[in-house]
Formats: sequence, structure tokens, C-alpha cells
Amino acid sequence: MNCLEERIVKDGVVKEGNILKVDSFLNHQLDVELFDEMGKEWARRFEGVEINKILTIEASGIGIACVAARHFNAPVVFAKKSHSINLDGEMYTAEVESFTHKNKNMVIVSKKFLNENDKILIIDDFLANGCALQGLISIINQAGATVSGIGIAIEKGFQNGGQIIRNMGYRLESLAIVDEMDAKSGNIIFRK
Amino acid sequence: MNCLEERIVKDGVVKEGNILKVDSFLNHQLDVELFDEMGKEWARRFEGVEINKILTIEASGIGIACVAARHFNAPVVFAKKSHSINLDGEMYTAEVESFTHKNKNMVIVSKKFLNENDKILIIDDFLANGCALQGLISIINQAGATVSGIGIAIEKGFQNGGQIIRNMGYRLESLAIVDEMDAKSGNIIFRK
Repeated sequence: MNCLEERIVKDGVVKEGNILKVDSFLNHQLDVELFDEMGKEWARRFEGVEINKILTIEASGIGIACVAARHFNAPVVFAKKSHSINLDGEMYTAEVESFTHKNKNMVIVSKKFLNENDKILIIDDFLANGCALQGLISIINQAGATVSGIGIAIEKGFQNGGQIIRNMGYRLESLAIVDEMDAKSGNIIFRK
Repeated sequence: MNCLEERIVKDGVVKEGNILKVDSFLNHQLDVELFDEMGKEWARRFEGVEINKILTIEASGIGIACVAARHFNAPVVFAKKSHSINLDGEMYTAEVESFTHKNKNMVIVSKKFLNENDKILIIDDFLANGCALQGLISIINQAGATVSGIGIAIEKGFQNGGQIIRNMGYRLESLAIVDEMDAKSGNIIFRK
């Protein structure tokens, strides 16, 4: 087990409805030492891949992306979520439908900060159905930029987001892939 | 001038209505090398002060707080913004009225992550009227925790948030205090 998997076993809580609570270290209280280890691991896995910018999405992706970015010598851009559509033409936007929450959100990035020369590593905390990720990929495509890779902290391997992304040919490196988890026993089984 | 002031002069844009756009390095695209320098400077200014946790607020405070936190060996907790009031009793909440936007928002932190033993450094990107900061201080008081200090990237010195906070006896360290700025000329005058 790597450091993230060990931490999930130690401090993660499995709840009914396929919910994995990791708010004590990943997405409410943030263990920045762990984020640094995660950044090192992504840097190792993406060694030799051209990456000049990191793209993430508010709010819980930002901390992980910023600490990890120190290992890539790259700036971070974070996409904003909004309920309204920006019509001024200065923004890349993607409408993202959440399968989980059954609602639609806009994902927005200023055109100033993405262009056709960018080689982008996407970083986010969770991948389940992949809604947010699809929005970020759409925005990168609108900018004519390149998706160099995708780094996810925790992938819910029993949902189909990861498979869809891999089927589309993207290089996806999830540090912990949960294949099974059980709210009664609290057991978590990671993919090998 | 310190590194942040130099960067504001180089890449900040003054707009009508006392708006200082710093989205190319501080709150949309994020220069994590700069954040690291800012973290070092806060660590120098707060040397000898007991700090075991950093509190910030989503979204644009998170990246700065996480990179700075590496210089304090402390975890980060970020307060969430919400339009609805959480009634389950497991959250500290503060209602924050924005003078600028004339609306009310809830600021929320789980009770799990703040307690009476915590010595907290608040970090945020901007201080103008101090609305968000007042909400964070209220939450720290609800938890019985201690405000060890407040680190702000950019303080708008011509608005009264900073003065109110200093009058209340809090130690406030703003890395750049803008005393005057002019949209026509683009001139920015920092406090010495």
C-alpha cells in the first residue's frame, strides 16, 4: 500500500450509499505533508511527460494541485463552478451534468490562462462517474491545448468514470483505486 | 518592495470600482513559487508564535494556505461557503454579510476539525471590508480556539477591514497593503 492507501485505511470512513469520507485529511482538513508525498508520486509516474500547467477544479482539488505543482515547476489554474452561464466570450465553459446530484453546473476557465501550447496535467481529489473530469477535458479541448495526463487521488473503481477516461486513451494515474468498500464492516479493498 | 508587491506592479490590473485584478497569479491562475515565498515570509513574521493549524476559506484562499502551511508543519482547514444553514449541530457556522455584494453567505467548518486547544493562523488572499475574516474569527471563537495571527496576501488599505481587525487586537500581517490605486494610470501605492 502507498501512503494514501494507508491513510484511507487509517482515517477514511465508509458510509452507506458508496460514500467514502476522507474529510479529516483530503477535502476539508488538508494534510499538506500527505499532499507533498502524493505530488512526488505523480511526478515519478509522469516523469518524462511534457507538462507546463496543472488544471484542477474548485474547491477540494486546489490544495492538492498547488502542493503537487511544486514537483512539476508549473502554475496551477483552477476551474470555477457556477450555476450561471457566462456569455461574455472571455471564458471557456462546459456544462457538466452530475449523475450523483442530478443537477447541472457550469465549469469555467478564463481564456487568458489556457492556450494551444499548453501541455496540461489535470489533478483532482475524487473520480467516480467522471463528470467534473469530462468538463475539464472539454475546456482543454476548446483551448486547443493537450491533456498530458490525469492525476487523481481516489478513484472509485466500482463506478465507471475511470474506465471511460482510460477507454478514451487518456493516461490516468489514480493513487488509490477503491474496488470494493463496505459500510457495515468498514472494509476497503484497493485495486492492485 | 517584497516579491508580492513587485508581482502586483508587474501583473496586477487596476479596474474602475477599486478592483485589483490579480487573477494571473493569485486567484485563478496560481503561481505556486510565489505562494512558497509568501509562506516563507509569513513564517518569518510569525516566528516564535504558537501555531498548530491554518484556517482559510474557499476557494482562492486554499492554494495559498496549503503551500504556506509547509512552512508551519501544520494542516489546513478550509471553511466552506453555503447559501443554506446547516442545522445538524455538527458544524460551526457564521453568517457573513458582504458589504460589497449586499448578500449573506454562511461560512461553515466541521466541529471535528477545530477545538479549544487549537492555535490558529488564518490565511486569505484579500482583505477589504473584512467580512469573510469576521466569519472565520467567529468560528474560531465558537470552537474556543485561539487566533494566533492573520496572514493576508493583499490588503486594500483604503477600506476599513484591516483597521477594524487591528483595533480588535489581532496580529494582522498583510504582505502587500495597497493605500491608493488608480484605474486610469494603473498606478498603485503601497503602504511602507
